[in-house]
Amino acid sequence: MTTVCLPDDSAVAAVGPIDGVQYVQWDGRSEPPNDLVEVQFLVGRYGDAPPDAEVLASMRRLEVVQLLSAGVEPWLDRVPDGVTLCNGRGVHGASTAELAVAGLVAVLRDLPACYDAQRDHRWQHTSTQSLAGAHVLVLGAGDIGRRVATAVAAFDAVPTLVGRTARDGVRPLSEVAALLADQDAVVVALPATPDTSNLVDAGFLAGMRDGAVLVNVARGAIVDTDALLAELAAGRLRAFLDVTDPEPLPEDHPLWNAPGLVLTPHIGGGTEGWQARAYALVRDQIERYLRGERLRNVVTDGF
Amino acid sequence: MTTVCLPDDSAVAAVGPIDGVQYVQWDGRSEPPNDLVEVQFLVGRYGDAPPDAEVLASMRRLEVVQLLSAGVEPWLDRVPDGVTLCNGRGVHGASTAELAVAGLVAVLRDLPACYDAQRDHRWQHTSTQSLAGAHVLVLGAGDIGRRVATAVAAFDAVPTLVGRTARDGVRPLSEVAALLADQDAVVVALPATPDTSNLVDAGFLAGMRDGAVLVNVARGAIVDTDALLAELAAGRLRAFLDVTDPEPLPEDHPLWNAPGLVLTPHIGGGTEGWQARAYALVRDQIERYLRGERLRNVVTDGF
Repeated sequence: MTTVCLPDDSAVAAVGPIDGVQYVQWDGRSEPPNDLVEVQFLVGRYGDAPPDAEVLASMRRLEVVQLLSAGVEPWLDRVPDGVTLCNGRGVHGASTAELAVAGLVAVLRDLPACYDAQRDHRWQHTSTQSLAGAHVLVLGAGDIGRRVATAVAAFDAVPTLVGRTARDGVRPLSEVAALLADQDAVVVALPATPDTSNLVDAGFLAGMRDGAVLVNVARGAIVDTDALLAELAAGRLRAFLDVTDPEPLPEDHPLWNAPGLVLTPHIGGGTEGWQARAYALVRDQIERYLRGERLRNVVTDGF
Repeated sequence: MTTVCLPDDSAVAAVGPIDGVQYVQWDGRSEPPNDLVEVQFLVGRYGDAPPDAEVLASMRRLEVVQLLSAGVEPWLDRVPDGVTLCNGRGVHGASTAELAVAGLVAVLRDLPACYDAQRDHRWQHTSTQSLAGAHVLVLGAGDIGRRVATAVAAFDAVPTLVGRTARDGVRPLSEVAALLADQDAVVVALPATPDTSNLVDAGFLAGMRDGAVLVNVARGAIVDTDALLAELAAGRLRAFLDVTDPEPLPEDHPLWNAPGLVLTPHIGGGTEGWQARAYALVRDQIERYLRGERLRNVVTDGF
């Protein structure tokens, strides 16, 4: 018998029974159940911090931790050696990419001003920028980045994908500085890792052209908030942020009022229906594990 | 010598000199110049109504009217028999499609509420709908409709293109009633013609499923405003409109306040840079005309 830990009733119902598998329910925060020690395959609750390190260390049969988000950074140091960590790549990618593009268009076309005009019953026609002909640098050539590139190309923008390693159709991160000056927008869709933390710092932002738009739908820590604030306050850059550092943003934080900024409260993923996509992935991963096959979405491999 | 009429100085500069062509400048509204009678190829000013019928009738050498918009409806009855009418298909398609998708996402994810929260410094996380898995019916399989379909597919929506005639990958308009019940959104990207006027009437709207979103980036007259208002007021449908009937919308019109409606003031086309795209088309059309080749974007053929 293989023991799988799922966060709640609805997860058990969504994954459904699998021959040879018994489920333990634990949300990762409440008192650990006695049979947690039997668990070989642990599914983390979406959006939650990992359990205490001692609890994870006590799970002596643990072989796989499966998360439901693309980002895994709080778990990276916490997962015991020899345990495979998998992320939820693909579960939230479409909705996150969709928000990146909608947010970029909102900035280019000043849609918040249109909504203000609607409230005031003003038919206030203006000519604005659009994506047609715009050069869009997409940092991150994974699921989210590729969807963003496809969508903006459908609107006649010219996307350039940048990944951590160069490959067909993907430029390496080392070339970003040289590419920046030609870009009308930069979309950050990279995982948060020690390598990407503060990647978009004052020097990076200074390399962007006047009036360019920074979009961040990844993690707040990738962008230097103070450096971005300075560029926004100077009116030199514009931005769409779905993620911030710190997060949630305190009520008195200067980002709220920054000129040229459109901000949403980390709503890229977790849209309605994500559970069905997430638990279809979980079921497939459990079945692969039972058959001894290579898992999908491996971030750190314990085997 | 071939005589071409362009609306203003900037058009003459943008099209540039062409061997064997002389330009007349006229904006279509001011007193007609004496040499208007020589004009064989007339370029209409973007967004303007056509000149008076008598003036057009007096242009005895006129063979081609080239417009810079996709929509041509006020010109259809005004262009003399035997004169070819061409539209600006492709000039505004990308930016109009971009706005259709951004507006649809704004409705699904309630982005105007996010912008209100930003102004109030509220980090108000909510889970919303997204395009992932949504069925999107795109009425109009031209430049705009195809771009919309490609973009929403990149976000895991399932688009269905509908055209006036069935062809590969395009369902005929006659099947719309049967398709409607399965759609989460309907995007109107059809030309306004006598056939499409009031196409989206009370019966059409009644066929849409509860909570579905109507998007109109084409022309206001295609949608029955009162019928849509009734569905919005009942909270049964939602909508994104970039075009309305009447237009501009009077300050006291009930659409402004309709629940579930996001409205922009006909900004789909005419974004920055459209002139370069438009006058590149005009130059190409003049050169085709000089060579006796078939023109692009022919709406009614006078030859």
